[in-house]
Amino acid sequence: MDKRTKFVLDEEEIPKQWYNIQADLPEPLPPVLHPVTGKPITPDDLAPLFPMELIKQEVSTERWIEIPEEVRDIYRLWRPTTLFRAHRLEKALDTPAKIFYKYEGSSPPGSHKPNTAVAQAYYNKKEGIKRIATETGAGQWGSALAFGGACFGIEIKVYMVSISYHQKPYRRVMMEVWGAKCVPSPSKDTKAGRAMLAEDPNCPGSLGLAISEAVEDAVSRDDTHYSLGSVLNHVLLHQTVNGLEAKKLVEKADAYPDIIVGCVGGGSNFAGLFLPFVRDKIDGTKPDLRIINVEPMSAPSMTKGPYAYDFGDKAGLTPLMKMFTLGHDFMPPPIHAGGLRYHGMAPIICHLANLGFVEGRAEHQLGTFEAGITFARSEGIISAPETDHAIKAGIDEALKCKETGEAKTILIAHSGHGHVDMASYDAYLAGKLKNYEYPEEKVKEALENLPKV
Amino acid sequence: MDKRTKFVLDEEEIPKQWYNIQADLPEPLPPVLHPVTGKPITPDDLAPLFPMELIKQEVSTERWIEIPEEVRDIYRLWRPTTLFRAHRLEKALDTPAKIFYKYEGSSPPGSHKPNTAVAQAYYNKKEGIKRIATETGAGQWGSALAFGGACFGIEIKVYMVSISYHQKPYRRVMMEVWGAKCVPSPSKDTKAGRAMLAEDPNCPGSLGLAISEAVEDAVSRDDTHYSLGSVLNHVLLHQTVNGLEAKKLVEKADAYPDIIVGCVGGGSNFAGLFLPFVRDKIDGTKPDLRIINVEPMSAPSMTKGPYAYDFGDKAGLTPLMKMFTLGHDFMPPPIHAGGLRYHGMAPIICHLANLGFVEGRAEHQLGTFEAGITFARSEGIISAPETDHAIKAGIDEALKCKETGEAKTILIAHSGHGHVDMASYDAYLAGKLKNYEYPEEKVKEALENLPKV
Repeated sequence: MDKRTKFVLDEEEIPKQWYNIQADLPEPLPPVLHPVTGKPITPDDLAPLFPMELIKQEVSTERWIEIPEEVRDIYRLWRPTTLFRAHRLEKALDTPAKIFYKYEGSSPPGSHKPNTAVAQAYYNKKEGIKRIATETGAGQWGSALAFGGACFGIEIKVYMVSISYHQKPYRRVMMEVWGAKCVPSPSKDTKAGRAMLAEDPNCPGSLGLAISEAVEDAVSRDDTHYSLGSVLNHVLLHQTVNGLEAKKLVEKADAYPDIIVGCVGGGSNFAGLFLPFVRDKIDGTKPDLRIINVEPMSAPSMTKGPYAYDFGDKAGLTPLMKMFTLGHDFMPPPIHAGGLRYHGMAPIICHLANLGFVEGRAEHQLGTFEAGITFARSEGIISAPETDHAIKAGIDEALKCKETGEAKTILIAHSGHGHVDMASYDAYLAGKLKNYEYPEEKVKEALENLPKV
Repeated sequence: MDKRTKFVLDEEEIPKQWYNIQADLPEPLPPVLHPVTGKPITPDDLAPLFPMELIKQEVSTERWIEIPEEVRDIYRLWRPTTLFRAHRLEKALDTPAKIFYKYEGSSPPGSHKPNTAVAQAYYNKKEGIKRIATETGAGQWGSALAFGGACFGIEIKVYMVSISYHQKPYRRVMMEVWGAKCVPSPSKDTKAGRAMLAEDPNCPGSLGLAISEAVEDAVSRDDTHYSLGSVLNHVLLHQTVNGLEAKKLVEKADAYPDIIVGCVGGGSNFAGLFLPFVRDKIDGTKPDLRIINVEPMSAPSMTKGPYAYDFGDKAGLTPLMKMFTLGHDFMPPPIHAGGLRYHGMAPIICHLANLGFVEGRAEHQLGTFEAGITFARSEGIISAPETDHAIKAGIDEALKCKETGEAKTILIAHSGHGHVDMASYDAYLAGKLKNYEYPEEKVKEALENLPKV
């Protein structure tokens, strides 16, 4: 057996352009609609929230979009990231499959998120913006944008869902180390927050409410923009830096994958890895490539939701996007993979799934933690609970190979480490976690409130 | 300015041998003495605790000691580690100095510790040992040995200082994820622990007591050995894998250092980096090389302690080693860099300091956290509080260059990330931390109890 464990690129090989799938879609994406008029949104509609460069990227059909040199210089701090051959996991599973994983946990905030946070901070800086407001759930995105803000001297204000703010202080402290201001949402800093606090002083908050606060903050100040960490086309675009590296690396390793697996909440991590590969499936070069989007059984938008127009947030402030959705009113059960608790899915992924190029799969949380433990004891890395969903699917595919005797090549999108998620592993090891069945009735109710288009 | 940020080696360049400084010392190390007889210890004295291979390494004067292929295969999971050029820190400081850091935080437990944990687990496995008992303070070492145990299927039992066990649960959970058993010390599992609990059921524990428990555990079971994470010669030997990589890398970068800085508690992290360099100073090739050992002002053994024989532990169970010591009875103030709270120092480092080849420097904790924040906001990485001591010294040397205009090359030994130390940063940012003056009176008292030799 070849011993090589790591496949790496030189930092000069950090991609110089992001890959825009919109150039290669067999059919264009369904239009994004204005939440009030129901008509396709225009760049001007988005101008109060985002820099014009990002708005252009959102709708661009150019195949390659240049990565600014200033962004590449920050990427150099941790990119290119490594492709690992999981020899020890293969041995532990006794499988003929070849398992690889591309590891994004080596970034300063420990996940894929800074790939777009740094880019978004840069474009805002370039447009003279001094301050960015955003929301965060468990804190992965807030900490990544805090890091991005530190890189370009932009003030970052993060509205963090109150219950996470108090339960997961480590992510909040990371934001503060990088100089960001983080407040629990609902906060006293916005009308929306004050109204909610007046109603319920102990309100635990929700991502929807935190979005409302961040958007209100951004539109109420000329020096401030808003920023989103997943779902949108430009976010997925920035994440393709990872997939482009991966394509070069599987060539080096002579290991073009048969199966690619990744976890999906909003979808940006996995799309960032698979978009440069799905192109080969669209153009017919790799017709048998399987791309499996792994979501939690408790929020299974791709596997259970209808393909319909819906809001991106609970409050109904965002434009309407066509996606697999469980309804923007749907509140997923409190699984520990907080980053996967989302009612919808990136429109690009949904469009590709609708066209048959990618597939969905739903997993229960206990099985994902078990997979994460197996991975930690063989490969060393303790993974984020979100990432454990990808690992679970990778292990299952490898075990199928053990049954059939096939030596398939499996590529796992490893989105980040779990160093600040140890409380979740503690609860799992203590037997305090449970699975949540698919909440069919709650979804049915939420789907009744889908906006009429 | 050359943009290159990272200097890397191929995994085939992981060193095949560790470097043993004992071959090149101008005078041999003072002998280690038996704690009861006061005579030089023999291999047989140590056999109940350590595998014979490690005992041989402890006293070997061979210059090169082969790294077993099985150990190199585990090293491949994260080694070789990267040498970074800190361009952004240099810019933030506006210094002509060239600052580099060798980063050990990419290992699964996030520090340099597994360099020896993996080796120690391997040699124990080879000798048929099924179980290893050890102690840990803040948990860096316990988690590293848990990882090492997982690699070779050895059961690991960790006695963790009770106050840390309860205050720092994340490290304990890491140990459990890797399959180790971790109990608070004092525990009910040993005579020493039970005696202490009978005396004080709420005893917060101490490293000295935890050592006593681990040693008692090891000597009372035939299938069990003991393991230590710093101080000893064989531990420093294993850590030289880092310095040997660094020597190759500074050659690639054309940046042989003028100054090397690192933090020291027991000393293994920094010695691992500097030992292959100090050889050049001993043989006269690099007479002006400065090697600065940075210790906390609250436990300044190198800068304040006498060079004398003392026990390695508080309880007086270990052999007597000649070292700079504050007295084995000395209990350092509760600074957040828990890994530096040690009364003594690795005999090899002390011998080299006594001969004038390396120097010591003491830092207050507030300044080290400030340095860590500066580093995080420029280089991205949030460092362990221990590592912040090295960063503080590196920054100070770079600022001296700013005054003199000299473009010195500074190499920082970056021993690990601070992802599980965020509570310390939280306390610092909230203004809740203070400096501790050198506890002169307490040291004076402790030194009165030095063993008579």
